Formats: sequence, structure tokens, C-alpha cells
Amino acid sequence: MKFFGADYYPEHWDRETWRKHVELMKNYGIEWVRIGEFAWSIVEPTDGVFDFSLLDEAVSLLKDNGMKVIMGTPTATPPAWLVKKYPEILPVDYSGRVRSFGSRRHYSTNSKVYRDYALRITEMYAKHFGDSVDAWQIDNEFGCHGTTYSFSEADRKAFIEWLKAKYGTIEELNRSWGTVFWSQIYSDWDEIVFPINTPTFENPHQMLDIYRFMSDSSIEFLRLQADVIRKYSSKPITHNFMVDFMDIDYRKMARYVDFVSWDNYIATEVYDPLRQSANHSLMRSLKHAPFLVIEQQPGRVNWRQRNENYSASHLSMWTKQCYLNGAMGVMVFRFDQIRFGAEQFHGGLLDYAGRVTKRLEEFSKCKAELGETVIPKREVAIYFDYEVEWMHRINHVNRDFRYWDSLVEIYRAVKRLGYNVEFVFSDDELNGYSLLIVPYALHIPEEFRMRISKFEGPVVMTCMSGVKDERNWIVERAPQDLIEEFGVEVMDFGAVKNIEILAPGKRLAGKYWVDELRVCDASVIGILNDGTPIITRKMGMGNGASRYYVGTVLDEDGWIEILKHELEPRIVGDDVEVSNLESEKVWTLERKLMGVLNLKATRNVAFVGGRKIDLEPFQLLMLEG
Amino acid sequence: MKFFGADYYPEHWDRETWRKHVELMKNYGIEWVRIGEFAWSIVEPTDGVFDFSLLDEAVSLLKDNGMKVIMGTPTATPPAWLVKKYPEILPVDYSGRVRSFGSRRHYSTNSKVYRDYALRITEMYAKHFGDSVDAWQIDNEFGCHGTTYSFSEADRKAFIEWLKAKYGTIEELNRSWGTVFWSQIYSDWDEIVFPINTPTFENPHQMLDIYRFMSDSSIEFLRLQADVIRKYSSKPITHNFMVDFMDIDYRKMARYVDFVSWDNYIATEVYDPLRQSANHSLMRSLKHAPFLVIEQQPGRVNWRQRNENYSASHLSMWTKQCYLNGAMGVMVFRFDQIRFGAEQFHGGLLDYAGRVTKRLEEFSKCKAELGETVIPKREVAIYFDYEVEWMHRINHVNRDFRYWDSLVEIYRAVKRLGYNVEFVFSDDELNGYSLLIVPYALHIPEEFRMRISKFEGPVVMTCMSGVKDERNWIVERAPQDLIEEFGVEVMDFGAVKNIEILAPGKRLAGKYWVDELRVCDASVIGILNDGTPIITRKMGMGNGASRYYVGTVLDEDGWIEILKHELEPRIVGDDVEVSNLESEKVWTLERKLMGVLNLKATRNVAFVGGRKIDLEPFQLLMLEG
Amino acid sequence: MKFFGADYYPEHWDRETWRKHVELMKNYGIEWVRIGEFAWSIVEPTDGVFDFSLLDEAVSLLKDNGMKVIMGTPTATPPAWLVKKYPEILPVDYSGRVRSFGSRRHYSTNSKVYRDYALRITEMYAKHFGDSVDAWQIDNEFGCHGTTYSFSEADRKAFIEWLKAKYGTIEELNRSWGTVFWSQIYSDWDEIVFPINTPTFENPHQMLDIYRFMSDSSIEFLRLQADVIRKYSSKPITHNFMVDFMDIDYRKMARYVDFVSWDNYIATEVYDPLRQSANHSLMRSLKHAPFLVIEQQPGRVNWRQRNENYSASHLSMWTKQCYLNGAMGVMVFRFDQIRFGAEQFHGGLLDYAGRVTKRLEEFSKCKAELGETVIPKREVAIYFDYEVEWMHRINHVNRDFRYWDSLVEIYRAVKRLGYNVEFVFSDDELNGYSLLIVPYALHIPEEFRMRISKFEGPVVMTCMSGVKDERNWIVERAPQDLIEEFGVEVMDFGAVKNIEILAPGKRLAGKYWVDELRVCDASVIGILNDGTPIITRKMGMGNGASRYYVGTVLDEDGWIEILKHELEPRIVGDDVEVSNLESEKVWTLERKLMGVLNLKATRNVAFVGGRKIDLEPFQLLMLEG
Repeated sequence: MKFFGADYYPEHWDRETWRKHVELMKNYGIEWVRIGEFAWSIVEPTDGVFDFSLLDEAVSLLKDNGMKVIMGTPTATPPAWLVKKYPEILPVDYSGRVRSFGSRRHYSTNSKVYRDYALRITEMYAKHFGDSVDAWQIDNEFGCHGTTYSFSEADRKAFIEWLKAKYGTIEELNRSWGTVFWSQIYSDWDEIVFPINTPTFENPHQMLDIYRFMSDSSIEFLRLQADVIRKYSSKPITHNFMVDFMDIDYRKMARYVDFVSWDNYIATEVYDPLRQSANHSLMRSLKHAPFLVIEQQPGRVNWRQRNENYSASHLSMWTKQCYLNGAMGVMVFRFDQIRFGAEQFHGGLLDYAGRVTKRLEEFSKCKAELGETVIPKREVAIYFDYEVEWMHRINHVNRDFRYWDSLVEIYRAVKRLGYNVEFVFSDDELNGYSLLIVPYALHIPEEFRMRISKFEGPVVMTCMSGVKDERNWIVERAPQDLIEEFGVEVMDFGAVKNIEILAPGKRLAGKYWVDELRVCDASVIGILNDGTPIITRKMGMGNGASRYYVGTVLDEDGWIEILKHELEPRIVGDDVEVSNLESEKVWTLERKLMGVLNLKATRNVAFVGGRKIDLEPFQLLMLEG
Repeated sequence: MKFFGADYYPEHWDRETWRKHVELMKNYGIEWVRIGEFAWSIVEPTDGVFDFSLLDEAVSLLKDNGMKVIMGTPTATPPAWLVKKYPEILPVDYSGRVRSFGSRRHYSTNSKVYRDYALRITEMYAKHFGDSVDAWQIDNEFGCHGTTYSFSEADRKAFIEWLKAKYGTIEELNRSWGTVFWSQIYSDWDEIVFPINTPTFENPHQMLDIYRFMSDSSIEFLRLQADVIRKYSSKPITHNFMVDFMDIDYRKMARYVDFVSWDNYIATEVYDPLRQSANHSLMRSLKHAPFLVIEQQPGRVNWRQRNENYSASHLSMWTKQCYLNGAMGVMVFRFDQIRFGAEQFHGGLLDYAGRVTKRLEEFSKCKAELGETVIPKREVAIYFDYEVEWMHRINHVNRDFRYWDSLVEIYRAVKRLGYNVEFVFSDDELNGYSLLIVPYALHIPEEFRMRISKFEGPVVMTCMSGVKDERNWIVERAPQDLIEEFGVEVMDFGAVKNIEILAPGKRLAGKYWVDELRVCDASVIGILNDGTPIITRKMGMGNGASRYYVGTVLDEDGWIEILKHELEPRIVGDDVEVSNLESEKVWTLERKLMGVLNLKATRNVAFVGGRKIDLEPFQLLMLEG
Repeated sequence: MKFFGADYYPEHWDRETWRKHVELMKNYGIEWVRIGEFAWSIVEPTDGVFDFSLLDEAVSLLKDNGMKVIMGTPTATPPAWLVKKYPEILPVDYSGRVRSFGSRRHYSTNSKVYRDYALRITEMYAKHFGDSVDAWQIDNEFGCHGTTYSFSEADRKAFIEWLKAKYGTIEELNRSWGTVFWSQIYSDWDEIVFPINTPTFENPHQMLDIYRFMSDSSIEFLRLQADVIRKYSSKPITHNFMVDFMDIDYRKMARYVDFVSWDNYIATEVYDPLRQSANHSLMRSLKHAPFLVIEQQPGRVNWRQRNENYSASHLSMWTKQCYLNGAMGVMVFRFDQIRFGAEQFHGGLLDYAGRVTKRLEEFSKCKAELGETVIPKREVAIYFDYEVEWMHRINHVNRDFRYWDSLVEIYRAVKRLGYNVEFVFSDDELNGYSLLIVPYALHIPEEFRMRISKFEGPVVMTCMSGVKDERNWIVERAPQDLIEEFGVEVMDFGAVKNIEILAPGKRLAGKYWVDELRVCDASVIGILNDGTPIITRKMGMGNGASRYYVGTVLDEDGWIEILKHELEPRIVGDDVEVSNLESEKVWTLERKLMGVLNLKATRNVAFVGGRKIDLEPFQLLMLEG
């Protein structure tokens, strides 16, 4: 990996302490440092008065010590004076309440006043630093704390403009939104309001457009900043994406950054290493390219109900997992550990007294151990769409269902069989993959349906797929091409809690949803207790490959059973992650490389092929096939 | 049953589709069709511009095909232009937030502006259709989504007028509300506000008046519309009441409609057929007359956490249950199934492609099988009062207790013994009933206390009865007539979680509440573990009949034990519903008719008298005694 | 005990009923009566018009019958006319919503308008009654229902003044609050707002100042009233404190009252007698002096989810428990039981018909049985700080942890060993105590750290202690004096759910938090499963006594094990409370007195020394040692 680094806040320390810190960075191999992204009130202490001296000194010190600097624009934290002067820049939450100053992300991207101030400070940064820094991060964690969504008057006005651009006429909007239902026909654009605190369910077509608009607003805000920076700097631009985050269409946003970065924090109250891996994979898939972990959880965080203090060897394992999933670098958040502020209990690589921790030592060791950036091979593709995630939120048949969580179950199943997963989007080419899974894909654009037909390997499609059009209307019938491709038609459907499926020699568990299938041209390979078909297989499609249809939501074990029809298990073992790698350095046609990472803090055993593998705690083993 | 029908929305389809739909209606025996109740923005696209052409064409097509039409007034969905023009018509919720446009029922009945617009569109409908339609439905589901309650300035002003009419002087209000408590004495009417977001418990007398006023506001709004319609049409007027709904005094509202209709949707997350039956019975009891199920759940709905897809044979069973409980008709919501709008996942009698479903076929079969409307005989009466339900919400001793849920437990007990239940209100005559139950009746007007004394059959009264006066004050002591009638005095009381009751040869379970009884003149037939009396029986009252007092809340099984003292079990069996019928056609003095409905989707067995009855899945069997 | 009394509301009754009530008071030994605290709208029915006739007559009647009167100022319930005239006096909750009229405590202490009105009515009371009453209660239950906190514009302005007084310059505030974090630097005082509805975590230093300011606001409001009263009356002043209540620094507030009173209601849904005892002890510790239970729960209350009707013998036991913990009196809330108002289901000493209850009889018996006020001996001291409680609320490592609940576990452990507990504050002298516990004390002022060093008995300190400074910053390292005193340094820490601790011959349970310890100079007496030290003991400090450090949160049983190192168990038994007493009357150097109270409603057995003690239900036994 190229980037070993850490996030750092010079404004939190005096100059003398900087020098101690930078000395330690150098000693422990920290080469990339991100700074500046919360420094607005330092740089512009009052309206229009700019002072870059602190950042200048910090950049000089870092550069003088041979480090690379990623400069963050500070727009995630508008200063107090700006909020006082223009309270209308504050966002409004879905309950209609203004979100106040006092933490961070307290702005609406659609406030014109805010945009002007944000672009002015961005331009000042860009003009001032130009190419003297090595990369740029725009803002910080767009959408964190639910801030993708704001419902102020500025947002409403912007939404109406967005709708005008999309629909042209109010009549076209009325048709598309089905406003004839419940007498919601608009006679004028300005009648459109956000459905905040409606007595009951909102218009599902309007809701989908709201999700799109809010995502687009963040993307537009990023794009405007990127354009400003590019006027003054040739250095690459990125933004730090988040774990398990679905409010912004990252695929779309990724177009406007030069490389993808993300913040690798444990996503769930109960730590699940393969869920983190699924996020790595999604981030890699956004551009189908190596990515940067720009914030790596160091150990304890401060924002959970219970903030566990993970051992230093955890940080080591996490770093190896980043590597194994195609990261080109890891930067730990944060180098220093501070005594004040809302994150005072967040861990760092130093302790509160500024002493080196085992975490810094372990991280430093990783740098020595890990080689060049590796690239996981294309093996299994899972179809993914941010808009589908939004559709699943709206008026669902089963409100217990969570799209991403159910995809993670599939991800885990594939990985436990020893295969890589890449996520594919509707405009992705499918060459190189050996198996395609199309799960819970409420809407599938025609473009991608055609790719499915042409796909030469086996395809597994599930319930809920192709049920909606791009307006979020239910389709009259499933698209004819899908019916023919899979040999089944979904006649009706409904929610379930749990169902039992009888597959040859095995009982599987289904949940959330059950289809009522008409089998036109396929074998039945799974039935319900009353004999109804629920899983089917059609042979001889796409160059002889099979087409599977699964009319319910399987759990991880059920997925393993279905996938075993096509994927020979490569590994037997628990709590290990396998990654099959290629890279300029390690991959030749004759030479296969498999990385096996022990996810446990204790010794572990796995079998790869017939071979027994002994693993030390958190050990990463590179096997040649 | 006379009415077989469905609800239909011509505005959701083009003319050609109408013709296909109406053809199918005709073929499958749909004779009654309800339309128009969400068509405001079609009929009045902008302020004061009216266009009835769509509804006219639809009515003509339906009438030309021999159908009857129920026309709904569209006041549940004020159009966007009206909300834009007069935002003050929007309701305000109990947290003080305005409820916005974007779903339905977004209006306050007390907004004068809204009343004017609503009565104008109603008059336009009435004038336009007059007697050319066959019945009227006013608005749609008053109070749905908590909309009985609105706390806007318009509501506050109307509340003060309502209070002035009730109390005359502010001094009288102060006395009645006990405002001397916590220094709440008003010196002027305008000081009165809704107790929104008070630091702690509200004035319980004020709260009861608020519940009354809000219920009265809906009733008044209905009455005003009904008066307008009656100026132009001689056809009967109804309104669609709701399941398990207690916010509006339906007994009082029923005075202003010509017949009672209701919307038979499954009330609870776990389906309980006898709870639906209890609702049928309550609806029949409002006017002690046959009623219409104007919206019957077809299968899947869209508004639950998990929306199960019930089989077509469920619809068949539900229709039979309507029949058995005295419905004069069943109309399925909805005929068509639509692809857009907030209810896009709601089932219908057609599928999304317009194809006939098994649901339509099964419903059509019911029409052939079921005869004339039947009338369940008067057997067991349960005293019921909407105001008592409201009193139970306020400052309760045990906030876990739910009045209606506990009544449903009694209802189930009586039905499982093979007897009919009718609910009776304070101004109902009690002739014809063989047993009277007075449960949890916090307030019992003197008028009804006198009916209890005169009642010639056995009476069971429970804890919490007669504890409050009509102002929601606690009484000094229980009324003397009740003490004498039942032979016990309640000295004190308190909440419990669970208690065990020792009855002769049996242990019963009590919950929620326990009385401390002074037994004056009765036998003790149930005691607590410490020997305290909790259930008593006084013999020889009302023509020799017994008076039972139950000083706690029994569960269903406990009620069966108590009621067996007076009701010889007529049936043994689970998951069957029995209804003992009379009707002009089927009932003579010599001939008894018992309907037995298998509530299960599988075969079932029951014993009636000594006779074994085999029942097919969901079968309805009519037995002659 | 000197005070046997009850709370009474003459304004709720007519004059004739007063006479009956006072006659009953006299017959049953009620000698102290509190009145007047919700009578504002009686005394000042409209702005500036005063009428004391009702209270005058009531006071005369009581005094004529030999009773003592505590007069309450009525400022907890501003009248309707005042709210109507000045709506800006209403408090604003943390969600930004105005709290409305209609219950009680609907005012902000920082509203200047309200202060003027409140001090005017207080002055009228003080001037009018002067020394003709026997004591004063100011307002009622400051902070009840979360009303310590109000976020109106008046509060914001007052907060800014408070900050100016504390910090002098905005620069100093910026430094102390660490506003450089997340760009929160203020350039002007008026930019400071309450962090209501921020997107994410608030500034922890600002939050601590908000808790301080809100507490100070209530204290200031009390002080202003006390000053007014003292101008006209020489009688003692008190205020009724609450159970388990931590929003106001009662230690600080207690400075401004002449004696501490509190309202002894059961604090938890599941009744825990020793938790009530812990509250008695905390109240006694505020001034290290006898206190008054000015409101004693009579039996049933009305404000719980389930309001159980406790037996009259419970009231007797509760009264004995008050006595045993050093109460100088008990007054029952309330004498009468009323039929109206928000507390209509609250029990009293009479029933709804005005008849004497067993409760009154039992309470009256207690008066005969209990002797002079007793004083529990100083034995075990637990360090306590209201500010620490506030720190624990903010940005905690483990949000499941509750400071006071964990202190109650320690309290229970000490009591079950047969020892008294007194809480000590940072400015308390520690002489007289034999053991000191310093638990979860996030911040320990230097003043108290010095007292620890000088303490001659054993000291037990726990995790989380000394971790913060007075600004709520985390310290660089634990204070050197503590490290030396206890022989351990905390290197790092984190949250846990549950851990197992291996102590000699015993397994203990830890929870919430775990320290990573560097043991410098102590023996390890408890380790985790992986061998990490977690409990240590350093011998030979403070006159040879031990210093224990416990690096996690023990449960009650764990505390008993640790404390047994120092405290020889004096009693064996469950559900008994022991109090070791001294008093002028009962205590001589030769004579020890131990009170043993059976907390159970059934017979009980305990062993004191080797002696078996048989206890009747709820019996209080006084043993001489």
C-alpha cells in the first residue's frame, strides 16, 4: 500500500507540541497527513477576514519532514458568526425543527447564502495552497448524522427548481407522481411542499424524488467545490465516504472525485468483520479501482452506546483487511488524542499525555509487513443500486426488511465459500465475473436487464426484483424478458415473518417476503411446506449457464446452499476472510495468490483445498495456489 | 345480503379501462360501487371552477350496466391549491406541530374557512347528482390517523365556544374542572388553552371535555354535510366507521346517518377473527340494525409493518363472517389494484395487469351461496360507552389497562360459550336480553343504573364501575343503589400486575386492578390468596336473578368460568364462530337457526349439543335446532 | 421525632369540612400542617388584587387547634391570567417547544417578568404571615418534571450573563470550552446559543456549564425568595427536595435553607426499600443534620404506570425507616383525599368520603411508638458530587452507566454488612468515618484529593475517578498524588458489557467500564480472565490503612466481597435494614444502640453477632449492644 498516514489537527495544539508530534510521525512511518477540514473559524475568524498562518506553518512543518498533505476544505463546520448573521443557512429536520449550531454539519447545501460563503472559503483555500499540498478532501462526511436531508424553505425552493428541470410541466409531474391518488393534483409548482408531518403515508413517487434530490444536492455541492479547486490546483480530489451509508448515491458522487476514500469505522453495535469487508468491496466497486481508507478506527470511538477499547492488534488486523480488499492506503483517525471537544473519548495513536501507544507501534509494523497494493480478482458480481435502497424505504410490503443488511448476508455467504465479491451497477460491463447475483432489485433498468440476458455465467435473481419502474410505480407485470430468462412469473406476493423451504436433502430458512410463482419453464429446486414452488432453476441459458430464481429472502446459510450449485467451496473454516488477488506484482497466469486473514484474536485453523492452515491470532497468510 | 359491491376509482384509469372493469364487475356480480370520495382536485381543479364530467361519465357507465352507485363527498382530501391559499386549515398535532399536505385528512373541522369550502363542494356534489346516485357517503374515515384531534387556534376558539355553551359562566367551568387544584382558576374564557406539552399531568376534567369536543367537532362536520345533501337528495346517507376506533362517539354520530357502514380491516398485528366479530357486533349495536361493510379487506393491505398476502379463501370466510354478524352487504376495497400512490401495495379484486384474481372468483361465489340478510338474536348484552373509553385514557390507576381490549376478552368468552353479544348504551332498552354485563364502566348514568335494577336476568358488574361522575370526578362513595343491588361496597382499590383468584374448584387469573371489598349482602365466590373477597354473588334480585360483582379484570378463561354460572355452553370447539340467528325468512317460533363458521384454513371439528360437526376449511354451516 | 404532620389544601374544601378535618387531625396526633403552596390564584385572583381571607381562616383554625403551620410560597403554579398576559414566562423544552399552561411548574426562573411577579407574591405572603406561621417552604419541588431545564430566549440571555461573570472574556470561554474543536470559536457573546437539536454531539464543556447554570438558576430563585421572607419572618425556611433527583446541586441549594426537607416517594417501578434509605442518607448528608420528610407517600400514588395500593402497615414501616435514618419528622402527603384534579387517584389519610382510613390509624400509632429523633453514627463515607453526576451524562464512554444507580449498589452492600453510610462532599471534613469510598468520581478537586491522603482509615477508589478536570476536559494523566496514593496508574480504558473477575477464592462480576492498569506499587487482588490486574490493594498508607483500587464497576455482591476486607459483617439476614444510632438520649460511651427494621410484610429472621433475632412483619427492633 502506498499511503500510510493519519489525520491531524494542528489547531488543537501549540507549535512546540506540533514538533514533537511530527517527530513521532516520522519515526513511526506516518507519511500522509490530512489536516484543515474543521479549521474555518481559525482561517476566517470574522466575516471576510482571512488568516492562513496556522495552516501555513503546519503544512511547512509537515512538508519539511517529508510528509504528504491532504488538505480538507472546512465547509462541514460553518462558524458561529456566520450562523448568527444568517440563521437561514441552518438545516431543518424531518420534524420541521431547525437544527442548531453547537456540533457540526449545521447547514443546508441548498441555502444560496451558504453556498456563497462555502465557495468563497473553498476558493481561498484553493488559491492559497494550490499545488503546494498533495491532495484535497472536500468537506467532511457528507450526510453524516442524517444531514443529507434538510427541509428548509431554501431546500423547498431548490427542490421545485429540480422538479421543473426534470418534468418540464406540472402536468407531467402530476402524471409521474400519480397525484390523482388522494386528490394531490398540483395546479402550480409553488403548491409543492415537503410532506413533513403528514397525517399518514406520503406519496411514494414524491418520496423517491426527494431522496434523489437530496442526494443530488450533496453531489452538486461537492461538484461546485471541486470545480473551484481545479481552477487553482492539479492535485487529486477526494471525499471521505461512510460505512453502511445509503443516503447519497456514492456511485454518482464518485464521478466527481479523482479517487474514492472512506472512513472505516465498525458499523454495528456487534462487530462483524465481514460487514466491514462488504463495505470495502462496495467502495472498491464505485470506481472498480483501489481506494483510500482515509479514516481508520484506531480502537475506541466515542459515539457508541458502549465504546469498547479494542486492542492494538485489532488495528493491525483492520489494516491488513484494508490491504486485502484493495485499499491503496490507510490513514488512522487520529494521530493525536485530545482532551477536549465532543470526541474527547475517541482513541488516537498517542495517549492523552502524548505518549506513543501500542496502537502506533502495531500500525507502524503493518507498514513494514504489507507490500504493494493488491487487487482482488473479479469473481462474483452482486447487482447494487442506491436508488433501489431508497425505494425499499418507501411504503414497503415488509417494513422489517433492510436491503443492505440482506446484501451483506449474501456477501458473507460468497466470502465464506472462498470467493471475492464485487458490486456492479446498471451501467457496468459484466465481463470477467463468473457468477451474477441480482438480489431484491426493485427496479432494474432495461440496460441492465439486457446485460443479464447476455451474461454467460450463471445468474441468481431474487424476489422483489423488477417490481418497480423508475418512477417507483409497480409494474403491470414483470418484464417479459425476465420472465423468459428465468422461466417464472411472479403472480402475487406478500410479507412473511419466517418460512421453511424444502430443498433437495436440506431445509432452508426464508424470511420477510414470499412470492407466488407461476413456473413457465424451469425446474423447481425449493418448495414451501404446502408444495408451492419457491426456488427454481432454468438450465441452458447464456452459453449453457443456469438461471436461478429465489422467491424469498434467504439467510446466509440458505445462500451458501444455493450458491454451492455453482461455486465449489474453496475454504473450510470460521472467522477467516479469503481474498483472491491479482496485481502487477503478484499475478501471472500461472501464479495464483490467496490471502487468508484470521479474523480472530486467538489461534485458528482452516482448510484450503485439502491443506490444513494454522493461523496465529489476526495473522494474514499469503498462499500460492 | 343485499349489497355485493366494491370500491372503485374511475379517476385512476382511462375510459377504455373503465369499460373492461365494469364488464368484469357485471360478470362477477358486483352490483354496488362506491366512487368519488377522493376526487376533489378532479372536480374542482382550481378555486371555484367545477368539472363533473369524469364522475358523470363514470356514473352513467355504472348505471347503464345496472349498478347502484354510492357517491362519496371528497372532503377528506382538500386540494393543494386550497392548502396553499389558506394554510390555516391545516390541523395541529398534540405536539403543537402543523400537519402538512401530502397524504390525506389534512384539515381541521373547526376551521371556518375549511368548513365553507367543504360545504360548497358538498353542495356542488349534492346538487349535481341529487337522486341520480343510490346512496351517499360523507367524507372518509373521520378521525383516521389520529385526525380527530387538532389543536390549532381555530380549534381553540371553537373549544371555547363549546365550553361557553356547556357551562354558561367561567365560574361554573372552574367548579366543574376543579381548577382550584394547582392554581388553575380561570378569570376569563380566553385564558383557556389546550394543554399541549405541559410539564406534567393535565387537568382530567378538561381532558374529558377535550375528548368530547373533538368528537363533537367531527359529528358536527358530518351533520352539516348531511343537512346540505338532504336538501338535494332523498337517498340514504352513511359514513364509513373504523375498526377498534374509539376517538369519536359513534353512537352519537350514528344518529345523523341513515345506516351504519364500516371498514372491516384486520385490527391487530396478530389476526384475531373474534376481535373482528366484536367490531361487527359493535357496529350492529350502534343502531341495533343491519349494517354495511363498505370496505372489506381483500387480502394484503399496505399499511402494516408486515403486510401478509391472505389467500382468496380468507376473503370468502371474511364475507361469511360479515353475513353471520348481520351485515346487509359487503363491498370490497378495492375492485382494481393500482400501481401508484400511497396504497400501491394494497390488494384488490383484479391484479396489477387488470386480470381477474382468485379473490374476485371467491367473492363472487359467496354471493351465490349466502342468502338474505340475517339478524343475530339478542342474547347477552355488554354495556358500552365511548365516554368511558375516554375516561380510561386519563390519569388511570393502571396505565396498562385498555378498556376495549378487555371488552374483547369478554366478547370472546361469551362467543366461545355459543352465545351472541350485543353492545348496549345508556339510553338503550334492555328487553330481549338474557344476561347483562357491565364491565369497567367508570361512569354509569343514573338512567342506566335504574335499568340495571329493573333488569330481570342476571347481571355481572366489575371493578372500576360507577367510580366517576360525568365531570370525571371520583365519586365520594359508590352510588347507594349499586351497593344495594350487588351487596358489596368498594372501599379502596389499586393497580396490580397479576393476581390469582381461588374460585370453587378452580384458579382464575386477575390483572390490572384489584378492589378492596366490603361485602354487605352477598356470597363470596372468589377470594385472593390472603382470603380477601374478590368475586361475589347476590341471589334473588331482579325476578330472582343473580347479581355478580367481579373486583378485578378477568382474562377470557376467567370470564368463561364466571359466565358458566348462567350460560350453559352450547358448543365445544376451537376456532369456530357461532351465531344464533333470526330473520324474517329463517326464524319462526318453532325454528332455530345456528350458523357455525370454521375460522381455520384447515378442517375442524366441533360439538353442538351432543352432536359432532365436521367442518371443511373456512366452511359456514347452518344448523337447525 | 418532633414533627408528625400532613400536607393539607384548605382551598379544596368548604369551611365546614375544614372543621371536621382539623378535628380528625387533632384526634390522630397530626401536629404539623403544610398549606398554601398552590394557592396563588386564590390569593391573587387577578393581577395585583390580593385576598388572604381563605388562608387566614385556615391558619387561624389550625393554630386555634394547637397545630404548627408550614406556609408554602405558591410560585410553582403561576395563574392563568399571568401566563395569558406574559406568555414569555413559559419554559422551553430541549426540543425547542414551549411548555404550556395546564399542569404545574410552567415557568422559567430566568424570566425577569416572572421573577418580579414571583417575588411580589412571596413578599405579600411574607409580609402578611410574618411570624404567625411556624416555618416556610419555598415553591414546590424545584426541577420536578424536568423543569430545571428551560431554553427560552430569557434563559439564553441569563446564560450569557452567567458566562460573562464566570469567564470575563470570550477568549477565556473559547479556551475553556475547547471551541477550536469543530470550528466553534465565538467572536461575540451573543453568538452563543443552546445546542438544541444539533445534528450530533454537543460541546461537553458547554454542556457542563449548562447543567451548572440551570442548577444555579433554581438556587438563585430560591435564594431571592428566602431573602424576601427573611425580611419579614424569623421562622425557618426549607424546600422540599426529591428522591433520586440530580438536576440541581442540592448540596449548594441546602446552604440557603435552614433545614433540609424531602419528599419520600418510592423512586423506582420495582420498590427497593434500601434505595429509599440511600436517599434518606443523602438528604441527611447535605447538612450532616436531621432532616424533615415533608411529604411521605401515604400508599397509592397516581403518577406511575401501575399505581399499587400499599397497605397501611407499609406507611407504618416507611415512617419507622424515616426515623431510623435520622428524620426529625414525617408529614404525610396528603391528609385529605380529593375527588378532582390531576392527582385525584392519589391516596391520603382520609378516604374520598372523608372517613378515617387504616393509614391514618397506623400513622397515629407510630407517633406513640417512636421516640426522640435519633442520629445514625458516622461509619462509612461515600464521596458524592452533583457535578460528577452531570459529567457522567455527557459524552460517556458507556452510556448504559448511571452514577447514582451504581452508588446505590455500594450503599446496599455497606448496609447489608450492617454499617451506616454517610455521603461526603469535597468540602467536608472526614473525621469520624472509619472507611472512605470514592466511586466513579470523574472529577476530584485537589482539596478533596488532599483529604484522601490524610484519611487515616482505608480508602476504596474506583475506575473513572480523577479522569476529568473542572472544565470537563480529560486529564493528561491521573493526578500524581492519586497514582502514588493507590499505587496504580490508569493507562487506558473502555466500555464493557460484562466481565468476570477472579479474586482469591471467588469470582466477581464487573460491568460498564474496564481500566487498563499499570501497577506501580500495590498488590493485585483481582484479575481478569486473561490475567490483567483489575483490583489492587496498597497497604500501609494513612496510618497503616489500605488503599484499594477497583478498575471496573462491581455489582452489590462484588462490593460486599471487597468491603469484607475491612468491615466485619455485623448482621446476617435479608430484607432487614440496620442503623447504628447515637442521640443525646440514647447514646453514651458505654451504650450502643442498633435499630433493626424488618423491611418485609411477613415475619423475618436475622442474626446479629451470634444472636438470632425474630422479627414481626415490618417490625422495628432496638437492640442494645
